[in-house]
Amino acid sequence: MRDVQIVGTGTTPFGVLDDGVKDLGVTAISRALGDCDVSRGRVDALYAGNFVAGILEGQETIGPILADEVGLSGVPAMTIEGACASSGIAFQQASQAIASGIHDVIVVAGVESMTKADTAEFTRALGSAADQETEGRSGLTFPGFYGMFLDRYMHEYGATREQVASVSVKNRDNGTLNPRARFNEAVSIETVLESDLVADPLRLYDCCPAADGAAAVVLAASDIAEDLADRPIDILGSAHTTGHNAAHRYEDLTTLDATVTAAEQAYEAAKVDPDDIDVVELHDCFTPAEIGDSEDLGFFKKGEGAAAVEAGRTQIDGEIPINPSGGLLAKGHPVGATGVGQIYEVCRQLRGNHENQVEGAEIGLAHNIGGSGVVCTVSVLGRGADV
Amino acid sequence: MRDVQIVGTGTTPFGVLDDGVKDLGVTAISRALGDCDVSRGRVDALYAGNFVAGILEGQETIGPILADEVGLSGVPAMTIEGACASSGIAFQQASQAIASGIHDVIVVAGVESMTKADTAEFTRALGSAADQETEGRSGLTFPGFYGMFLDRYMHEYGATREQVASVSVKNRDNGTLNPRARFNEAVSIETVLESDLVADPLRLYDCCPAADGAAAVVLAASDIAEDLADRPIDILGSAHTTGHNAAHRYEDLTTLDATVTAAEQAYEAAKVDPDDIDVVELHDCFTPAEIGDSEDLGFFKKGEGAAAVEAGRTQIDGEIPINPSGGLLAKGHPVGATGVGQIYEVCRQLRGNHENQVEGAEIGLAHNIGGSGVVCTVSVLGRGADV
Repeated sequence: MRDVQIVGTGTTPFGVLDDGVKDLGVTAISRALGDCDVSRGRVDALYAGNFVAGILEGQETIGPILADEVGLSGVPAMTIEGACASSGIAFQQASQAIASGIHDVIVVAGVESMTKADTAEFTRALGSAADQETEGRSGLTFPGFYGMFLDRYMHEYGATREQVASVSVKNRDNGTLNPRARFNEAVSIETVLESDLVADPLRLYDCCPAADGAAAVVLAASDIAEDLADRPIDILGSAHTTGHNAAHRYEDLTTLDATVTAAEQAYEAAKVDPDDIDVVELHDCFTPAEIGDSEDLGFFKKGEGAAAVEAGRTQIDGEIPINPSGGLLAKGHPVGATGVGQIYEVCRQLRGNHENQVEGAEIGLAHNIGGSGVVCTVSVLGRGADV
Repeated sequence: MRDVQIVGTGTTPFGVLDDGVKDLGVTAISRALGDCDVSRGRVDALYAGNFVAGILEGQETIGPILADEVGLSGVPAMTIEGACASSGIAFQQASQAIASGIHDVIVVAGVESMTKADTAEFTRALGSAADQETEGRSGLTFPGFYGMFLDRYMHEYGATREQVASVSVKNRDNGTLNPRARFNEAVSIETVLESDLVADPLRLYDCCPAADGAAAVVLAASDIAEDLADRPIDILGSAHTTGHNAAHRYEDLTTLDATVTAAEQAYEAAKVDPDDIDVVELHDCFTPAEIGDSEDLGFFKKGEGAAAVEAGRTQIDGEIPINPSGGLLAKGHPVGATGVGQIYEVCRQLRGNHENQVEGAEIGLAHNIGGSGVVCTVSVLGRGADV
């Protein structure tokens, strides 16, 4: 297997945007190709992650359509879908396709347009990530799933509602400096705890907002990457796993097996431990998700994640900075774009030019999960040498 | 790159079925795994092709959900979407993942449930394969696209309406013996030409019917395949390309570039010529599509495809048997399932146990196209030796 590097990155802001899914994708891809020295003729394939453009815009076949739109007609192109992990999967698939020698250069994009939908359409669209025969039929939406998760977590580990709310306070605070974030206003613990109840005990500011947006990266085999970019980022390890497709199948509702196994595989491939990670972008779709994820990824022991946030251990200057971008809670969650959006933010950190820079960050991790933990990707990236 | 073989195949009938997309997928995968000696523990990944379960059933994330349902929780799994070519792409991706050494054994499934939708939902769902900003906005549905195609073809090459209708007569006749086909009744030229006008000059019996259905295959590296099946089928070559995403971009409306290039690449990989192919399952979504495809794949010179059908050259006992299964016109077109469904039919031919057996078939071809020719896969399969 060959080493693979990220040679170009591009994104739109995440937020309420005018463009539909095709134009968002064209913008992000054009920016990523403009960020490196890769001509259209050198691109071997286009992998696009998207979740609900079919339901919300009546637009499927995004991958092939984008290929033609950005001047790549002819290359193999497809849409990869795995709910909220759609573009994390696309990234992992592309990385292994280059590592194994199938392709040399691949454009990976994640795209989603969501904010034009009305509430009923939106709820149906997001719910399509869950098994309709079990959770769909019983009305268990994702706020409901993470509400149960939080209840169980507080019961098992004695975490407080304030500790959990501090995830939102931290991420919204980080978002104040990120021009790509949907929300740039800080919130207080009180604001979170007094916001509208969504799915008891989850409140509005425990939940990430919808967003429109797209992000793209250009991947290349490392033996040619140095000709294509000044500062390629190393993909040290990337893993893609599945877990259970419904809450009733979990032995422990606050541990997502797919994250645990993806992290193990990614660390092993990258030859690193959780201690080696300098900066993390993880899937904080809800405040309790960040806490569970931080434990499943091995940064804290089970049950200690909530207190760790309150103690500032996951702040930008803490021992393990989590979501310096603002995460899904502040950036917003344009579902199919989120995975590559996380990769984009980690690349900025490793290039040393993030608005919320973690000093000296050399190894970063991106974690993207779909459904009730049914599918997950974890990628470990390293700051490449100047070339 | 390693050689790859198909060790197990399974399918549901195509037609009006009670099951939804999840249960259809479980049935096809279980049958494919039951057709070979592959335990769950040997499967490395699940690639699922699906097109519109999100729009029609509110069910996305099919790949990961199916993995958990069939006892494969943990393996990387995803949904691959490329309109009508969704599962053809999933098959090609899986084939190259094994060839390159990423995985040893992969389950590929194609699934779709369509017949429960009402006409408006159905039309919107199918239309999502087209670029909504151009063809969608102008109302150019796929019957409209192939109506223009047929008009142009008759104008350019002097083909007759009777010649084109003979595609439907042949495929419906082939479908009479296929228990997996939605339609088992023969039709006459007159029936086709007197059926309701759909998109002038296309009539009802020029158009394939919707269907529910699923099909699955198990792929393995050839060095282990002999332990897993009595009669593995060789994947001699498989290609995936893109073309233009809207009719106005075509220089020649009756030639789909994606098919031409995919065929060239697949023939080169398989080291065969069109003359070497013994049996073909190609994408006859409409009668003119079969004629165009048969030329784009190199079986006939441009403009000679229609006369060839009328002359019987594509019959089961003709020089190049096309769609002995009945094709999409008789089997039906459960969109995301069609690509693997074609592979299933070709495998039966190469195993020598098809209901419409082409005598002595040793090399078969499957051709799957999505949208207005925006994405295409061509796979060339060979009859493996008994082991």
